[in-house]
Amino acid sequence: MKTYLTGIQATGMPHLGNYLGAIKPAIDFSNSSEGSFFYFIADYHSLNSVKDPKLISEQTYEVAATWLACGLDTEKAVFYKQSDIPEIFELTWILNCHIPKGDLNRAHSYKAKIQTNEEAGKKDIDHGVNAGLFTYPVLMAADILLFNTNIVPVGKDQVQHVEMARSIAQRINVHYGNVLIEPQESLSDAKYIPGLDGRKMSKSYGNSIPLFCTEKKLKKLCNKITTDSSGPDDPKSTEDSLIFDLYKYFSNSSDVESFAKKFQEGISWGHAKAELFEKINSEISGYREKFDYLINNREIIDQELRNGAKKARAVAGKTIKSLRKNIMGLES
Amino acid sequence: MKTYLTGIQATGMPHLGNYLGAIKPAIDFSNSSEGSFFYFIADYHSLNSVKDPKLISEQTYEVAATWLACGLDTEKAVFYKQSDIPEIFELTWILNCHIPKGDLNRAHSYKAKIQTNEEAGKKDIDHGVNAGLFTYPVLMAADILLFNTNIVPVGKDQVQHVEMARSIAQRINVHYGNVLIEPQESLSDAKYIPGLDGRKMSKSYGNSIPLFCTEKKLKKLCNKITTDSSGPDDPKSTEDSLIFDLYKYFSNSSDVESFAKKFQEGISWGHAKAELFEKINSEISGYREKFDYLINNREIIDQELRNGAKKARAVAGKTIKSLRKNIMGLES
Repeated sequence: MKTYLTGIQATGMPHLGNYLGAIKPAIDFSNSSEGSFFYFIADYHSLNSVKDPKLISEQTYEVAATWLACGLDTEKAVFYKQSDIPEIFELTWILNCHIPKGDLNRAHSYKAKIQTNEEAGKKDIDHGVNAGLFTYPVLMAADILLFNTNIVPVGKDQVQHVEMARSIAQRINVHYGNVLIEPQESLSDAKYIPGLDGRKMSKSYGNSIPLFCTEKKLKKLCNKITTDSSGPDDPKSTEDSLIFDLYKYFSNSSDVESFAKKFQEGISWGHAKAELFEKINSEISGYREKFDYLINNREIIDQELRNGAKKARAVAGKTIKSLRKNIMGLES
Repeated sequence: MKTYLTGIQATGMPHLGNYLGAIKPAIDFSNSSEGSFFYFIADYHSLNSVKDPKLISEQTYEVAATWLACGLDTEKAVFYKQSDIPEIFELTWILNCHIPKGDLNRAHSYKAKIQTNEEAGKKDIDHGVNAGLFTYPVLMAADILLFNTNIVPVGKDQVQHVEMARSIAQRINVHYGNVLIEPQESLSDAKYIPGLDGRKMSKSYGNSIPLFCTEKKLKKLCNKITTDSSGPDDPKSTEDSLIFDLYKYFSNSSDVESFAKKFQEGISWGHAKAELFEKINSEISGYREKFDYLINNREIIDQELRNGAKKARAVAGKTIKSLRKNIMGLES
């Protein structure tokens, strides 16, 4: 039985792109597959960029509530937050002692940052880089290796992190005997979820639709989706229609077919937007209700994360104990 | 009341230079001064250079046994090993997120390493540098800041580490309110303890006298100390005599005076060496006996370090709890 691990960024309220591209597939996967699943909120990663305790806490609760509201089965997936697992940080140090600094120099995220500095003509190429940003691939490796992870489902931009985790594990295994599982990445096909303006949906583009907002707001945002200039009764093309693209993600094939037919028959953009809103809303309104409940009853979230941490630490404790013995010669 | 913290490298059996220059002054200081004292064995620092679990463990026991044998009062000084304090590693990550990488680029130890690489014509200036070596000033800062340390007694080469710890603490205090004590270094006057050949006593020079070896070995090593070529009955100069220099460290002033008189009167080098041996041996033979006992009864060392860890974690837990709240917004 394989162990799968997924890190969840604590970036606050997810949008529809996060929901369709990451949350829903991950929840469907763990709810319906064989295996061990570790899903964790990477709140200590956030500390690299967020220096506001209220905001980190708020974003962590929002993300946790989202996953729980969307139906994550926490009996099947161990759901916890990074900051509840102190073993991660001890392992990070152990790994630090076994990874060449050169590997970190070549990490994509760091290289992108220094390139930006160079292009901006900064004298210090490390301007704005803290030690956390530079070494966070090691923290990620610890996140992965601590739980005997076999498979890390990732997007393309995260492949290097799994490779680095594997490479440290290999180096350690060669030297100390096989003490760590060497993880593999599983590349998930990235879905292109368009935002209001057709570019990829992203908070930073300001084109996103929050997964959970009021119905009124959701309706309003659906009405803001860019369309072409065809008139109210003109037949409309489903190609290049953002409304049609988004509709597909929330509908079965017969609904999609009948929606396409309405496009041919000249549905007005206003009505098309209304139908899209209904589709989205009917899928998520139950989740929204649950989300609102959880975010107003945080002790339930706390309890879920505590339960998850307990299960996670049972595994983490074994790994650390074995490494302390095999690498440090410690008996306890 | 001030809190003093001292890190002890887990480099195995100390030599007389370590004893006279570091161990004895530190033990005398904590045994006879007012304050809180945290003395810890930095075994996880050793992992940067030692990739041998048996060796790290052995060196840790030897160092612990030495300090206990030499009379460290563990009721006054909290005596523990780094690997027993998981809070150190969580704090290390928190600090990583608050220290510019540039500060680490400028750390003496790292700069010395890349200079060596440059001089050796290495293409990769980071050759042989691992992430642990690069970031260990952050681990040292965590060692210090976790225990609300006011004063860190250090040699010149360690001043920068305390400065870095202070600078991170200042940065954090400015941003989050005063959540950390800003430590100061206290520069200890380095004693020049000569080795067998007159150069500074150092394992790497192969000129050291182990603090604990058999009497026979100690006598033999005393006999190997370099002397000038004056004949058996010639009057001898106390200036530039290694024997006289070492003798002074183990003797009161009246003994030193009478030893100087014997030099004038033409004591043979053989007799002078024998008197030095007696002096050293009379000071350390009791310690040696205790050391031998402890190293053969390691459960006593374990128990001492466990007690120390318990006391240390009581303090560490409070600091981490406060930082988790003030920096991460975590309530537990």
